Amino acid sequence: MNQIVKGSQSLEFQNAPYIVSAASVAGSKEAEGPLGKLFDMTNEDDLFGAQTWEEAESTMQKEACVLALGKAHVEAEDVRYLFGGDLLRQGIATSMGVEALQIPLFGLYGACSTSGEALALAGMSAAAGYGEYMLAVTSSHFGSAEKEFRFPLGYASQRPLSAHWTVTGSGAFLVQAAGESDPEKKSHVRIAGVTIGKIVDYGLKDSQNMGACMAPAAMDTIVQNFADMGRSEMDYDRIITGDLGYVGQSILFDLVRGKGYDIREKHLDCGMAIFDQQTQDTHAGGSGCGCAAVTLASFVLPKIEKGEWKRVLFVPTGALMSTVSYNEGASVPGIAHGIVLEHC
Amino acid sequence: MNQIVKGSQSLEFQNAPYIVSAASVAGSKEAEGPLGKLFDMTNEDDLFGAQTWEEAESTMQKEACVLALGKAHVEAEDVRYLFGGDLLRQGIATSMGVEALQIPLFGLYGACSTSGEALALAGMSAAAGYGEYMLAVTSSHFGSAEKEFRFPLGYASQRPLSAHWTVTGSGAFLVQAAGESDPEKKSHVRIAGVTIGKIVDYGLKDSQNMGACMAPAAMDTIVQNFADMGRSEMDYDRIITGDLGYVGQSILFDLVRGKGYDIREKHLDCGMAIFDQQTQDTHAGGSGCGCAAVTLASFVLPKIEKGEWKRVLFVPTGALMSTVSYNEGASVPGIAHGIVLEHC
Repeated sequence: MNQIVKGSQSLEFQNAPYIVSAASVAGSKEAEGPLGKLFDMTNEDDLFGAQTWEEAESTMQKEACVLALGKAHVEAEDVRYLFGGDLLRQGIATSMGVEALQIPLFGLYGACSTSGEALALAGMSAAAGYGEYMLAVTSSHFGSAEKEFRFPLGYASQRPLSAHWTVTGSGAFLVQAAGESDPEKKSHVRIAGVTIGKIVDYGLKDSQNMGACMAPAAMDTIVQNFADMGRSEMDYDRIITGDLGYVGQSILFDLVRGKGYDIREKHLDCGMAIFDQQTQDTHAGGSGCGCAAVTLASFVLPKIEKGEWKRVLFVPTGALMSTVSYNEGASVPGIAHGIVLEHC
Repeated sequence: MNQIVKGSQSLEFQNAPYIVSAASVAGSKEAEGPLGKLFDMTNEDDLFGAQTWEEAESTMQKEACVLALGKAHVEAEDVRYLFGGDLLRQGIATSMGVEALQIPLFGLYGACSTSGEALALAGMSAAAGYGEYMLAVTSSHFGSAEKEFRFPLGYASQRPLSAHWTVTGSGAFLVQAAGESDPEKKSHVRIAGVTIGKIVDYGLKDSQNMGACMAPAAMDTIVQNFADMGRSEMDYDRIITGDLGYVGQSILFDLVRGKGYDIREKHLDCGMAIFDQQTQDTHAGGSGCGCAAVTLASFVLPKIEKGEWKRVLFVPTGALMSTVSYNEGASVPGIAHGIVLEHC
């Protein structure tokens, strides 16, 4: 066996697979943000040559996959399985986006945690010997997400300060199994292990405060990772959540402290990193399947690749809801998946 | 390694995991159909004690999981990972349904092919040694699906003869890794291998004729399975599609014949098996994530368990669309995942 089952929710891979390439495609507002210069591709009108926001989101997914493959000089036909998802109903951004690649597909839904879910399954499949290359991709688009979850943009509805700004972006990650072809030469980042999250529901119902809805799930997965792996915050250079934002971050700090850990010095939130809250009017921060994905691809992985960070716990978080569940008065539970990324 | 990578899309497990138990929960119309007496639980008003169709669907998923666990005398806390999905936007039937079980969750979306996707990932994870027990569950509900995809039921819109009737039902499957605990004593059904499908798009746009939209994907996965495994229809006792219905079946036969195979003697479609077309006014047949799942759990698995069928190719099919993609004029591509089930 090439992996070890750890604790109750985690796996540690003995022959850990590598992230051999990653690519980020983002929109105009993201291009103007703090990470703007790091993205592989950006677009001025957020339509990427398409007629609709949904098509634009599909185009971003396809371009991110093609860029990630191109960077590693790997053909789509050499990728065994693709793991992808987005926020739209019935995952159409993924279905329409990756269709042209003709890679056998596992469609996923984990709200904004989907980049973690996709990386976990890609890593698990590569580590198990189910193929040499796996591709993980997720996306979100401000326009398609507003249409899906909120109001027509033309209404110009006022947003509470706890609301997030959905990131227009897609990140793709090419995962390669450790093996004879010696991927160490291509990459210094490996997926060392995963901690798969449970649904965590504190009963919150405010879909305009997703940071508060997701923070308990982030805490649960981080603390479970520590327990399963026999670690603490001291064993990580960074603990990186997906899109808790300013509201969710402070709740996370409190909840984690209640469990006996203090992650304040190690924490980074992709939703806070991607926009400048002071000048970009993004309130609690960025969110969406694309937020954590493009931040990981453009900002986090290069630091691990260079060895600046030796071990990172990447924990994208998702708020599990739909307009139907919201209108029917259901709470908004959260889920978070942890991916242990190591420099090697 | 405990598996062999076959051809371009398939895996064959050397230590094939077992389906140690399965459970089916279904609605009132399904209870009156040809398989009605085989379901573990049915309900007269299709609400299962809930206030809304979405809650009812969640309740079915939970009950199906609890029943499957109970049959095998396994506790939820002993299940390593749960793979689940449904047809609703943002997968809320699954999120709300399995929350109480507190099993680490991979949320999936593959339209009506999701039962295949879930069984594939559960089998892959068990075969890889990622845990002893995995749970796979999917559901659909006539009421929630009509609301999600079509018109308010009160409109009493007329349905074309090519339309399907969404099955109200949920099927859950407990998968156990082959190992020291000797699951052979508990089960005579194993997941021998999988063939993961690609998106197949013949450009059809009629969401009221999903059989035609999905038949090309079913053909593609079946023929790919034959090629990858070095087999033909002669090597299977049954080739079982999810919900092609009467229209899709005839198209599938033609497409498969074009590839040099004749599966007419071996084919069974869950959507045709679950309702009596003559008396139940279900037009092309049943459909939905729950259709293939409850038919597999109640009708197919017992026949494999008894050895009546030695090897079955289970191929649930999905139509990848949403009301948004439909309204924007996109085509309805299909996807199908193949699961090789063997008596042992």
